[in-house]
Amino acid sequence: MRFGLEQWRTPANLMSLVVQKFGGTSLEDIEKLKNTAKRVAETKRLADHVVVVVSALGKTTDELVDLARQLSASPPEREMDMLLSTGEQISMALLAIALNELGEEAVSMTGQQVEIVTDKAHTKAKIRHVGTKRLFRELRKGRVVIVAGFQGVTPDGEITTLGRGGSDTTAVALAETLHADYCEIFTDVDGVFTADPRLVPEAKKISELSFMEMLEMASSGAKVLQARSVEYARNYNVPLHVRSSFHSGEGTWIKSEDEVMEKAIVSAVTHDFEEAKVTLMGLPDKPGVAASLFGALAKANINVDMIIQNVSEKKLADISFTVPKEDLQRTKKVVEELTESLGARQAIFDDKIAKISLIGAGMRSNPGIAARVFRTLANEGINIEMISTSPIKISCVVREQAGEKAVKSLHDHFGLGSSGGPKEPQGFQEPIPHEPYREDI
Amino acid sequence: MRFGLEQWRTPANLMSLVVQKFGGTSLEDIEKLKNTAKRVAETKRLADHVVVVVSALGKTTDELVDLARQLSASPPEREMDMLLSTGEQISMALLAIALNELGEEAVSMTGQQVEIVTDKAHTKAKIRHVGTKRLFRELRKGRVVIVAGFQGVTPDGEITTLGRGGSDTTAVALAETLHADYCEIFTDVDGVFTADPRLVPEAKKISELSFMEMLEMASSGAKVLQARSVEYARNYNVPLHVRSSFHSGEGTWIKSEDEVMEKAIVSAVTHDFEEAKVTLMGLPDKPGVAASLFGALAKANINVDMIIQNVSEKKLADISFTVPKEDLQRTKKVVEELTESLGARQAIFDDKIAKISLIGAGMRSNPGIAARVFRTLANEGINIEMISTSPIKISCVVREQAGEKAVKSLHDHFGLGSSGGPKEPQGFQEPIPHEPYREDI
Repeated sequence: MRFGLEQWRTPANLMSLVVQKFGGTSLEDIEKLKNTAKRVAETKRLADHVVVVVSALGKTTDELVDLARQLSASPPEREMDMLLSTGEQISMALLAIALNELGEEAVSMTGQQVEIVTDKAHTKAKIRHVGTKRLFRELRKGRVVIVAGFQGVTPDGEITTLGRGGSDTTAVALAETLHADYCEIFTDVDGVFTADPRLVPEAKKISELSFMEMLEMASSGAKVLQARSVEYARNYNVPLHVRSSFHSGEGTWIKSEDEVMEKAIVSAVTHDFEEAKVTLMGLPDKPGVAASLFGALAKANINVDMIIQNVSEKKLADISFTVPKEDLQRTKKVVEELTESLGARQAIFDDKIAKISLIGAGMRSNPGIAARVFRTLANEGINIEMISTSPIKISCVVREQAGEKAVKSLHDHFGLGSSGGPKEPQGFQEPIPHEPYREDI
Repeated sequence: MRFGLEQWRTPANLMSLVVQKFGGTSLEDIEKLKNTAKRVAETKRLADHVVVVVSALGKTTDELVDLARQLSASPPEREMDMLLSTGEQISMALLAIALNELGEEAVSMTGQQVEIVTDKAHTKAKIRHVGTKRLFRELRKGRVVIVAGFQGVTPDGEITTLGRGGSDTTAVALAETLHADYCEIFTDVDGVFTADPRLVPEAKKISELSFMEMLEMASSGAKVLQARSVEYARNYNVPLHVRSSFHSGEGTWIKSEDEVMEKAIVSAVTHDFEEAKVTLMGLPDKPGVAASLFGALAKANINVDMIIQNVSEKKLADISFTVPKEDLQRTKKVVEELTESLGARQAIFDDKIAKISLIGAGMRSNPGIAARVFRTLANEGINIEMISTSPIKISCVVREQAGEKAVKSLHDHFGLGSSGGPKEPQGFQEPIPHEPYREDI
């Protein structure tokens, strides 16, 4: 139980508040909508206050994107936000109707009505501020408040969206703002797994993870949660519970590292087939080259993931980096405009890659994990094209067609399917320095 | 050319402004969206400023209503507005994308962003005020502004809708506020017809109508325009042009009566199969009975159309009235709660009726039209259950199954199919008193 917002939830007035987020698969047809409403109503009987965040129904967002693409290869991002924000508005209204039908008073609110204020970066806006006035007014009346996920509003009243998976971020931001006890993320899987079960049938559900591990997983291709929402949860210490919307079994709890009871050395293997690799060859090895390149990419709002730079002979440098495949065309444009001014000999764009990552908080205190990763992949005849590490993650870029084999062999080698992975030696508890998370560029 | 808003459109600066409204059938698939965009772009090349109002794509609104009905027989109206307002937001964003793709800068705006402020009557809100600041800002940049029809926002920031066909009202309200030269309503028919061509194949397109005639037609079942939008257009003298979205031919112009060149005695026959009849029998014939009854219905936001009252023997009165079929359940509830306190003997609810109306500005100066209507129906063996007249309209309620025959026989009798109807005698021009329109209750 956390306290705060003393005006309305005081220690003398121990009220509980839960934020629940339901994804598109929990809302894709009338039956699922009704089940979701029942689930919320049950929670409302247990908790004093419930705030629900919804995504768009089923595949609505994809269908809307498809419509827009049929009209334009590069639709204005402002209009895309206008278009896509309707998906959540539809599902929240329907869920409110279903809840009222169950006798549970509910009211839906757009990002604008809640005042989820964001910056102006259309299609990938960041939340700057969450209003509480209207939320409190409705919660005080005993109502369930259903908030549109994924959307916000700029100070000028322009509708923005937070990028794919942004509803998780909305949920965590609300949980933080309202000092919720915890934030539940309902999804179509049972929780967070040691690998994608579609690739690795033996993959097991993980019962607890630290924010840092989840953050690395989300940044490395695990789709169950969006990295930004985990970062947000970590910054404000909002416990997350990722669970199935189809049954009431426990899912995966994500909390601060000191609250995680059972610490695995290696927690999971993730993969990301959605990145592309860009290599600039023969750059002059002098200060400012990388700064101009990545400055220009940042200005174009392109999220660069891995970056490696090597100095070759003749004082020339090669720089490789990865970007989301969907940003490759825009990246190409930026890079090609810069190639000459940077003095690069050649730019190579490669979208046939896979990024495989091994994640585990225990790696920090167990040297030699990286060597075992490289040996395992070598034994399978898989060539590694890029390597990037963090204290709790090792990522390798390999050919796309080798990706699945790489995931399976690492999952197998580290015994993740059988026991949940090798544990930290019992009784040994290394003092863990508080290490701020740094986003890859 | 009308002037106004001197700050930005001055007589010395003769700029033209057109408001165009496109309905769902102009936007129901990608091809039609593209054609609509081309049409707007063409207008933009001819006019200095173009404001476009859109309805939801094709059958979107019906589909959303259907989803809600699957969840609840009586969904909260606030949530219905939240739900239904998404339809227009989708179409305006897509049209903006299509226009930008044609190289025509366009920006879409919600009712909230424009500041189309309404009262709080969810699902049938009335426009109180239309903001101009943001519209002007965008128009000044040379952009086409695409506004969501049908929706508004209360002063508290709640999303409202204006009722079915409300996009027409939005278009006229914008045309008035911006002092547009005229307002074009694009639709799937060629204009306003002397009768519904699906019922009467010989029905002809009318080239000109007065606001009053159109108002009576819209109030009597003609679906091509919403009565409120015509009333608005009349009050502010905004010329309307109802035309096809599929070809560039002229449609029907609706203007003030003194601007209509060719005045027909009878202009059209309309029908309305969407009403139900309620009869309260054996009411005490004393003051205040009708006031309590219709006061309670008005409070429940039920639009009562025709009302007739007869005094029967023993000082008892019978009251009959019609309401939209969709309001019949709610009407039943209100009436049944009142039956006892009013002292009524019995209440009868009948949804198997048709209302047939004959409309024409020339009726005022040509007595005997009503008698001809009753004779024509009698000759067909059609019994008349209720009669209501205005200076330019005669409405009869008949059995539902007799409705089609009634329309055909009146259309035929008054020669509407052949010549556009009997004309006013040449050279005779009665001075027409300015008569304010009174809505039926």
